[in-house]
Amino acid sequence: MTIPLFWLVPVAAVSALSFAFLFFKLMMREDEGTERMKKIAQHVRTGAMAYLKQQYKVVTIVFIVLTALFALMAFFGFQNNWVWFAFLTGGFFSGLAGFFGMKTATYAGARTANAAQLSLNKGLQVAFRSGAVMGLVVVGLALLDISAWFIVLNLFVKNLDETHKLVMITTTMLTFGMGASTQALFARVGGGIYTKAADVGADLVGKIEAGIPEDDPRNPATIADNVGDNVGDVAGMGADLYESYAGSILATAALGAAAFISNPALQLRAVLAPMLIAAVGTILSIVGIFAVRTKENASQKELLGALGRGVNLSSLLIIILSYVVIRVLGIPNAVGYWGSIVIGLLSGWLIGKETEYFTSEAYKPTRHIADNAKTGPATVIIAGLGTGMVSTAFPVLTIVIGTMLAYLTASGFDMANVAEGLYGIGIAAVGMLSTLGITLATDAYGPIADNAGGNAEMSGLGKEVRKRTDALDSLGNTTAATGKGFAIGSAALTALALLASYVEEIKVALYRLPAKAAAFESAMEKTLQNASLGDFMEYYNVTLMNPKVLLGMFMGSMMAFVFCGLSMQAVGRAASSMVDEVRRQFREIKGIMEGHAEPDYAACVAISTKGAQREMMVPSLLAIIAPVLMGAVFGVPGVMGLLTGGLATGFVLAVFMANAGGAWDNAKKYIEGGAHGGKGSEAHKAAVIGDTVGDPFKDTSGPSLNILIKLMSMVSIVVAGLTVAWSLL
Amino acid sequence: MTIPLFWLVPVAAVSALSFAFLFFKLMMREDEGTERMKKIAQHVRTGAMAYLKQQYKVVTIVFIVLTALFALMAFFGFQNNWVWFAFLTGGFFSGLAGFFGMKTATYAGARTANAAQLSLNKGLQVAFRSGAVMGLVVVGLALLDISAWFIVLNLFVKNLDETHKLVMITTTMLTFGMGASTQALFARVGGGIYTKAADVGADLVGKIEAGIPEDDPRNPATIADNVGDNVGDVAGMGADLYESYAGSILATAALGAAAFISNPALQLRAVLAPMLIAAVGTILSIVGIFAVRTKENASQKELLGALGRGVNLSSLLIIILSYVVIRVLGIPNAVGYWGSIVIGLLSGWLIGKETEYFTSEAYKPTRHIADNAKTGPATVIIAGLGTGMVSTAFPVLTIVIGTMLAYLTASGFDMANVAEGLYGIGIAAVGMLSTLGITLATDAYGPIADNAGGNAEMSGLGKEVRKRTDALDSLGNTTAATGKGFAIGSAALTALALLASYVEEIKVALYRLPAKAAAFESAMEKTLQNASLGDFMEYYNVTLMNPKVLLGMFMGSMMAFVFCGLSMQAVGRAASSMVDEVRRQFREIKGIMEGHAEPDYAACVAISTKGAQREMMVPSLLAIIAPVLMGAVFGVPGVMGLLTGGLATGFVLAVFMANAGGAWDNAKKYIEGGAHGGKGSEAHKAAVIGDTVGDPFKDTSGPSLNILIKLMSMVSIVVAGLTVAWSLL
Repeated sequence: MTIPLFWLVPVAAVSALSFAFLFFKLMMREDEGTERMKKIAQHVRTGAMAYLKQQYKVVTIVFIVLTALFALMAFFGFQNNWVWFAFLTGGFFSGLAGFFGMKTATYAGARTANAAQLSLNKGLQVAFRSGAVMGLVVVGLALLDISAWFIVLNLFVKNLDETHKLVMITTTMLTFGMGASTQALFARVGGGIYTKAADVGADLVGKIEAGIPEDDPRNPATIADNVGDNVGDVAGMGADLYESYAGSILATAALGAAAFISNPALQLRAVLAPMLIAAVGTILSIVGIFAVRTKENASQKELLGALGRGVNLSSLLIIILSYVVIRVLGIPNAVGYWGSIVIGLLSGWLIGKETEYFTSEAYKPTRHIADNAKTGPATVIIAGLGTGMVSTAFPVLTIVIGTMLAYLTASGFDMANVAEGLYGIGIAAVGMLSTLGITLATDAYGPIADNAGGNAEMSGLGKEVRKRTDALDSLGNTTAATGKGFAIGSAALTALALLASYVEEIKVALYRLPAKAAAFESAMEKTLQNASLGDFMEYYNVTLMNPKVLLGMFMGSMMAFVFCGLSMQAVGRAASSMVDEVRRQFREIKGIMEGHAEPDYAACVAISTKGAQREMMVPSLLAIIAPVLMGAVFGVPGVMGLLTGGLATGFVLAVFMANAGGAWDNAKKYIEGGAHGGKGSEAHKAAVIGDTVGDPFKDTSGPSLNILIKLMSMVSIVVAGLTVAWSLL
Repeated sequence: MTIPLFWLVPVAAVSALSFAFLFFKLMMREDEGTERMKKIAQHVRTGAMAYLKQQYKVVTIVFIVLTALFALMAFFGFQNNWVWFAFLTGGFFSGLAGFFGMKTATYAGARTANAAQLSLNKGLQVAFRSGAVMGLVVVGLALLDISAWFIVLNLFVKNLDETHKLVMITTTMLTFGMGASTQALFARVGGGIYTKAADVGADLVGKIEAGIPEDDPRNPATIADNVGDNVGDVAGMGADLYESYAGSILATAALGAAAFISNPALQLRAVLAPMLIAAVGTILSIVGIFAVRTKENASQKELLGALGRGVNLSSLLIIILSYVVIRVLGIPNAVGYWGSIVIGLLSGWLIGKETEYFTSEAYKPTRHIADNAKTGPATVIIAGLGTGMVSTAFPVLTIVIGTMLAYLTASGFDMANVAEGLYGIGIAAVGMLSTLGITLATDAYGPIADNAGGNAEMSGLGKEVRKRTDALDSLGNTTAATGKGFAIGSAALTALALLASYVEEIKVALYRLPAKAAAFESAMEKTLQNASLGDFMEYYNVTLMNPKVLLGMFMGSMMAFVFCGLSMQAVGRAASSMVDEVRRQFREIKGIMEGHAEPDYAACVAISTKGAQREMMVPSLLAIIAPVLMGAVFGVPGVMGLLTGGLATGFVLAVFMANAGGAWDNAKKYIEGGAHGGKGSEAHKAAVIGDTVGDPFKDTSGPSLNILIKLMSMVSIVVAGLTVAWSLL
């Protein structure tokens, strides 16, 4: 049961992985520079790998426990036997994507610094191609895993008719998404705590107290800081976006299977559509990556133009080709679904622009925060929090309008056509992420440039080189804003799609519980097979007048805040230990400040590693346990309240934290560029404090929220069988 | 149509107002102290009155415009003719409650300081009795207005049968709640901006830059700061709690009318029950106030015990007497409803205790924040934000469990008995607020003690007096925590009740629109009269699978953040002007620091006044416009999404901001008490920055959120006729 066009998906996967390998080899051929550069790179590499090993150990234990529980659930008939295995592979591939990305990044840092000695353009090439490795590995592994599972399940699932087989296959594949989400959450939270503990510690003692520049080799936390960029911003982001990408495709496939259940031929095509759009987008991303080239001695603006050209080319081509894909698949209302794709792409782009407006030093909001630095740290913090909160209006409005339009075009402007409308929302998410291969490349290249800067500083490569890596880094900040727009926007859309998948899973669960199914059928006076999403809403009373739904929403909202609070506290605690350690070294190791003695870098690396390991457990496990408990007490309406409350609050909170953090960072950079007295002024000190507060906002708590809201949905989907079978109220 | 017991309500109202007048007279008889004390008090009084006049001017214009719009709506048949008038009186009485409270407070400040010269106990008596004026005025005016409207509407509404008359009367009276909410929002936002602009400005330049103590007469912003305590913490809080109190009673009455619509005799009793519980609670509050007395030279602990005794006595008596009230009314399932009342009271008390745990320097969370001051302002801020976020878990769990229990006991443990269950939630809110007369007295006395301290400092009354007023102030901080628990908890419960009232109003609106009503009746196959809340949910598809509901939730969530962001920014801007002005005066007026020249207090008062006036408009109007727009575009499901999203996020955000702000404040006080180097240390400076960031959290944005979530519901209720008549999608 499949169509020839399907084979485009594994082909795209293999192409992406092949090009990733090619770019990796090309990068490795570059010279890593002087002995000192190599040594520093080795330090960072060792630290990063040591951390990742530690993290994988902890996560492995979590996965073993969860897999055992899922196997038990399957044994007692609350799930099918594929679930635990799908869960495992999702986790494995998500981790693998992060691992490859990080490995590449740790090799690329010094090489970029060395290349930047020749020219800015050469530096860009090395850094961007290395970022492309990450982008292509993420999409390649995701498409590979998705197509492999699709083939395997098609072969082995036998005792169902075609249409229900597809529903079963797609909902089972969602479990694979849960594995990816679980891995991603640990990677984001753990990596986020690691990097920010190091960063905050290094900044507070090094920059503020000792007055030495960023990445100065005299700062004992500087290696930990650079390791952190790799484990948080690279490995964490890789696992995160792997999850977003796979999640959006899988959720949309499940919605397609549900929406077209009455038409077997069409149903298969609707399931394949998101995969094919992603496959085409991946090939176009490779094309786009090759388009990123610029003349020697290009200005920064020209470099940005070069990056933009690559992204724009891929986006433009996907707009054209996705229409072709839908037409070739023969899905009716092709223009409508194509509209959803275009709306998704545009919304992502728009959120990127909005993020840029609120966080770039070129615009009013960030400059306003910088102005407030003149009256001290308190007003910087107040202005940043205020601006961050106000900034949420724009991405939310964009998503609200975009989602409604995607729903309307997909449903043929018929609000009552819920199934196709929701499928349209999923398609919009897939559209938004279709060119992830290249957008992630422009995003991942940022931390590589950052690390190159660190290496250049520590190796004493001279001001010109540092200036070039700074230019690359600042370019990375701008492209990162776009990347964040896609990550946040797609998370909101995917979570909406997952909500619908949850209801589908309820249906699947009822099939497994004959007594419950009979009760449903007699109450609703229709067969389970013919029941619509609305029927399940009615049967389980998932309306806004059910206190279980409303109180579930309170809990969801609270979960988002508590999760952020826990990760903020974790960063605070780990950073405090770091500060104490750095102060101790400055005090006890004589000659550090004069450059006579080398600081004990390893001690700081160990503190970040231990801190991250210890602190990542509670918030991550909370995200897994909350939906299970809610289901056990309040049942289906409570779970849906939890998910929607968590989604609404988590989405807005994530935007707030990302934007406030980004704006503080750039307000500081704006002052460092000479405004309000420049480096060393009182205003600068105040801005550094703002930036420090913003660190866990934008790199720990904020991005983790995107995963949280999806993971809670995934968990609910996996345990839906239990929730349907029994709940207290 | 009424029963004799009803007359207890106006009797309680008149008693409360009489005792308020008595306490006011008693306070006025006290000596205001030395000439200098009188002069300073006069400064504060003039500033406060000048501000209030300005604010009322602006608010009057808003009320004129809104009243005209409501009159137009009534003219075109979308509302009845009482609405605009009820709206006006609600606004008027809410403003009046704030005005009286503030007038008393501005007279009481110097008198408390003077009394504190004699003994701590004497100071407590004056401050507490003055606080009682506020408490009794708020509940007295609310009950007076409610009973007057009830009588008037009973007399004039004629062309309806008894049961529908009561539904019409109670929903019309809700409009009166909207007037109160509108006034309260302006008072809270305007007052909050005023007080925090002055406070932040005074602290940043005075404490941190110039190193002079709080309330030092050399600080030009010190009078503005003291005025701010009165306009923000007293007038703002008065209008706020007037609104909470009236809102909970009115919403519950409306739910009672709806729940017992099929039984006219019972219906009237269910409508009167919340009024009577409030009336009895008011009389018990007066009893409790008289119980607050202690022996001469009591210790601080004994004083706290004395306050606690008063509150506990009233609470204990209401637990007993509310059962009597319900039994006398003859409402069936008396034990169930009584259970709801007790659960409401307990939940309020519990949230108070939780607030105390997270914000008092006696416990770990606040000390942890203080510990973080050792590593500088950034870690103080991160720790405070983290702790505040984590702290939301407890009040949310309390409300979730409390609401569910109140629902269950009231509905006879039948989840499907929605109408009575929701009525039980309303009854729980009324129970929680029933003894507001005394809890507000213990709350309002705090700012009076604070002002007394300011007056003592500025008048140079000596350390002993300042120490006593500080003891009173710190006592006030503890009781304020309890007060905040009641304010936040009741807001959540009342907002839940208002959601149900919204659906009731939809029904009323349909009666007015025959074509729409006919469409409803034919689709649902039942008459409008027999339709349940669930039927409206089904007809309007207010389920979690309707994208309008989900996107409405996004918007509601976003509204809470944007509203906070706007008020934070407003404080930031106004505080910046204040900082500039204070710096200018220190620079230009020679001899201030030496005490030779008097600073220009009036200039600072003018800056706060202007700042508050200018800045309060946008966030307040946003709250009024958002539900109207949402109704016009997404219709009923969108509005309900907006309200629930706003409620879930707003509730949690409010708790977060209140607790983080309170904890920073007390972490600073803990350090000032000698920890981590005490006053003047680096840790103290860091803690002052935390406190400054917390100022708008706990006194501007946080408390305004409570009003925002209710005002949005009230607005939706008032414009329901328009929403039902027409919406875009």
